[in-house]
Amino acid sequence: MKKLVLLRHGESTWNQENRFTGWTDVDLTPKGFKEARNAGRLLRENGFTFDIAHTSLLKRAIRTLWIALDEMDQMWTPIELNWRLNERHYGALQGLNKAETAKEYGDEQVLIWRRSYDTRPPSITTDDKRYPGFDMRYRGLPSGDIPVTESLKDTVARFLPYWNQSIAPQIKAEKKVIITAHGNSLRALIKHLDNISDQDILNCNIPTGIPLVYELDNNLKPLTNYYLGNDSVIGEAISAVANQDKAGA
Amino acid sequence: MKKLVLLRHGESTWNQENRFTGWTDVDLTPKGFKEARNAGRLLRENGFTFDIAHTSLLKRAIRTLWIALDEMDQMWTPIELNWRLNERHYGALQGLNKAETAKEYGDEQVLIWRRSYDTRPPSITTDDKRYPGFDMRYRGLPSGDIPVTESLKDTVARFLPYWNQSIAPQIKAEKKVIITAHGNSLRALIKHLDNISDQDILNCNIPTGIPLVYELDNNLKPLTNYYLGNDSVIGEAISAVANQDKAGA
Repeated sequence: MKKLVLLRHGESTWNQENRFTGWTDVDLTPKGFKEARNAGRLLRENGFTFDIAHTSLLKRAIRTLWIALDEMDQMWTPIELNWRLNERHYGALQGLNKAETAKEYGDEQVLIWRRSYDTRPPSITTDDKRYPGFDMRYRGLPSGDIPVTESLKDTVARFLPYWNQSIAPQIKAEKKVIITAHGNSLRALIKHLDNISDQDILNCNIPTGIPLVYELDNNLKPLTNYYLGNDSVIGEAISAVANQDKAGA
Repeated sequence: MKKLVLLRHGESTWNQENRFTGWTDVDLTPKGFKEARNAGRLLRENGFTFDIAHTSLLKRAIRTLWIALDEMDQMWTPIELNWRLNERHYGALQGLNKAETAKEYGDEQVLIWRRSYDTRPPSITTDDKRYPGFDMRYRGLPSGDIPVTESLKDTVARFLPYWNQSIAPQIKAEKKVIITAHGNSLRALIKHLDNISDQDILNCNIPTGIPLVYELDNNLKPLTNYYLGNDSVIGEAISAVANQDKAGA
């Protein structure tokens, strides 16, 4: 039996401001720092150690991982960073808050972007200052890989090659792995692992800062999964994030 | 012309307590945190970016790197961790302070350990709780590689394969590299780069938390080197560390 741990980053400044974040590189709030430290404490108390940690190129995920590893006293854990673990790219919605978005595009349209698996928000243009091609961390990517907007379906499609080529082989080789990432890149993984339908995955809300443990068989089929920690805290965190996700974070 | 940046970790709790640290995994002091943040600021102000960062498996070096990368807003920089960048292993002296060491072994003997290139302090035994083989982070190492004490010569010998096989090829391939490490593992590199004699390297004192830039030709021969920052601050830092190193830190 193999264990895989998933960890969604703690609260970010734009979660708090109720803005579409996507690939915008915002930091954690003080509450997000606390959530990350709590995640590390839960992992330590439950005796977890990791051979490899994976995370995105966005600081809210990297910092969550760093804080958790520090709390576990395992700062020496190797970290692999990959853009394919980044949050869904929200296109031209990035930076807008919910009220602005509803005003500009209408409530019904906003609902479609939030509730549809394969509808993309409006694209940014490649001369938009938000275009990832201007950001040094993505300079090695072919321009065809650089998103200007994504549906959740697109996020799943660009996440899966990294899972199949990098992470899954490590788990099969008995490496203990943690993935610290984002609401939608983790949805992409859970959809794949649990074979969840395109529609149902939109109702899957992963709480921030609570380690989610998957026990997998040798073919990486899930045997069970569970959150670490106190049941009532977990329940509250899931409700909170469901409401937050409804708000389009 | 290629640039390589070396950075010695900031002050640790055992620097402050004047204890032989070696492979003991002590943390930075508040001053050490500040030094690391200052190093990051200097790198940012001087426009540095890195393709790869190397560090040891010891948290005082890892944390110094994390803080510097955070201050540079480049937390997404890939980090490679390797035990060959660890501090010199001080054998049975690890944990003793200068006064205790002089009392136990005599002033003259302590001077030899500090001033000799190839004299090893007394070994720890493999059932000593300080034996690195008990530490999970070294579990992949062949027991023949796990030190029980080291002279500076030993540190140089175990550092060089990592330089030759991992770091040097990256620099030759035009990668921009920073190495965040320890007084003696950085001495090992400087001895190699500048072809310094066994005796003279003992007088080479690298200040903590001040980025040291080497400009190298295509064969990685140094063209010049310089510290970043204000000359008077650098001078003070070098004096401080010379005195600290005399005290056997």
